[in-house]
Amino acid sequence: MIHNEITSLFQIEKPIVQAGMIWCSGHKLASAISNAGGLGLLGAGSMYPEVLEEHIVKTKSTTSKPFGVNLPLLYPDIDKHIQTIINHKVPIVFTSAGNPKLYTQQLKDAGIKVVHVVSSVKFALKAQEAGVDAIVAEGFEAGGHNGADETTTLCLIPHVVDHVNIPVIAAGGISSGRAMAACFCLGAQAVQIGSAFVMSHESSAHHNFKDKIIQANEGDTKLMLKSLTPVRLLKNNFYQLVALAEKRGASEDELKNILGRARAKKGMFEGDMIEGELEIGQVSAMLHEIKPAAQIFEEIYSDFLATLKKNSI
Amino acid sequence: MIHNEITSLFQIEKPIVQAGMIWCSGHKLASAISNAGGLGLLGAGSMYPEVLEEHIVKTKSTTSKPFGVNLPLLYPDIDKHIQTIINHKVPIVFTSAGNPKLYTQQLKDAGIKVVHVVSSVKFALKAQEAGVDAIVAEGFEAGGHNGADETTTLCLIPHVVDHVNIPVIAAGGISSGRAMAACFCLGAQAVQIGSAFVMSHESSAHHNFKDKIIQANEGDTKLMLKSLTPVRLLKNNFYQLVALAEKRGASEDELKNILGRARAKKGMFEGDMIEGELEIGQVSAMLHEIKPAAQIFEEIYSDFLATLKKNSI
Repeated sequence: MIHNEITSLFQIEKPIVQAGMIWCSGHKLASAISNAGGLGLLGAGSMYPEVLEEHIVKTKSTTSKPFGVNLPLLYPDIDKHIQTIINHKVPIVFTSAGNPKLYTQQLKDAGIKVVHVVSSVKFALKAQEAGVDAIVAEGFEAGGHNGADETTTLCLIPHVVDHVNIPVIAAGGISSGRAMAACFCLGAQAVQIGSAFVMSHESSAHHNFKDKIIQANEGDTKLMLKSLTPVRLLKNNFYQLVALAEKRGASEDELKNILGRARAKKGMFEGDMIEGELEIGQVSAMLHEIKPAAQIFEEIYSDFLATLKKNSI
Repeated sequence: MIHNEITSLFQIEKPIVQAGMIWCSGHKLASAISNAGGLGLLGAGSMYPEVLEEHIVKTKSTTSKPFGVNLPLLYPDIDKHIQTIINHKVPIVFTSAGNPKLYTQQLKDAGIKVVHVVSSVKFALKAQEAGVDAIVAEGFEAGGHNGADETTTLCLIPHVVDHVNIPVIAAGGISSGRAMAACFCLGAQAVQIGSAFVMSHESSAHHNFKDKIIQANEGDTKLMLKSLTPVRLLKNNFYQLVALAEKRGASEDELKNILGRARAKKGMFEGDMIEGELEIGQVSAMLHEIKPAAQIFEEIYSDFLATLKKNSI
């Protein structure tokens, strides 16, 4: 067993966090991961306030272990989300996509552990200054929204670890115990895993999306929309529209127009593989099966221990 | 000590390869690394045939240990280079940027070990089919020329290792023993390190270039010219010209015109930090000192062992 600052902070058995992803991670996935000994997160970014409340209540009824909520700080109704989280005494919040100074103190005053997701040393230092308990450092290979610097996990983790004095959770490119062990060598004390858990029975991703990920090969995701907010997309018809527009030097307004509204829901939740926005990491090239979340979790963890053992000196 | 298929193949003591880089790696750097127990490579891509011959002769006179040549297969006078390599009984050749089927057999028939550099599983399989002895799998974070798929080292290495039955050398994003240990966890049997060795006294990079790398911060390199051949550049005036052209959707011909000729020599070798093309990896953000090559080598190797020890179970 690995015990470190992260397992102590979250009061979990195994240092694996399931990423709180839009449209993919509701109460079924979060409670499965927390019950397996990791930290399950609800993805609040795609939930209305009453939906988040429902998912918190259901998660509490299906696990007695710690769980958390991922909260994108640019969410329009964020005050309602924060009130719901505080009212229901959710023990842990991962914030992302926004300024960590805005809500960290309010959450900590309510006794909540706060973790902020960053893509650079610069933002890691800002998050530490804001008083967060830990940092997720997420590399270029991650699915969904991403940093402007394009720093990969291999380069980002040791750089961040050298600059902060709070524990670092590695994210981006981790779907196996080998990658988890690699991140521990880089100085991370836990990993956050998204794409691999999208491929669980418990994820709320549409089965069309899961099937498309099974077909995905290397090079089938790409970081797009860099002039708006960079996002890693799985290639489909919508991706091609964006790629053509970017190639001809389309303006931000044109790109916003192409993006439109509710594209991510349409793709990942409703299963429209043509018009939908499909967010997944580069590891999609290595994901070939849909399995129970607890099995994915256990396979990664035992592979992690086996890898450390194999490389022990 | 680590003994594995790579140390056996090259007959070296420590599984660290110094990348054969244009304008940066001549006989001084290669022999320093080979003398330190690794594998030094001459970067033939920026050498005329008679210059390569001179560097081979000088390397042989300064080390009795194995060394090699990196040979970009698109080099115009490649047959002369190959003849020089065979005539002087260079024991190891790393080929890159071209079809490994063309010269692998000829080199192997001359008793030379052949390694090919790839950026994807697809190309790794082609190289294996061509009969190479090992593969360098190089990720998106690497300096200089890069693959179209943008797959990062963390994602690329385990994927390649799972698909080939020859040993894999990891490259891209490795400038520390922590990153080296991470790559071993991913299944690599050696690492190829470029940028960190550019920062040695023995590298032939111009001191202006080394000084600029010291100043480089995260986000200061970017993969550019994707419609021609993707190349990771350090941001300077030339980079800005390319970035502006790409933003307005410039054609391949316009980009070729901006690139012009001999830009890399002008920047990296002659020290023109304004008009020159500066090729370096994302790890440049973590490189702050110019040191003897043997010291860089030993620091990485002892940090590698310490990291494996710290993570042993």
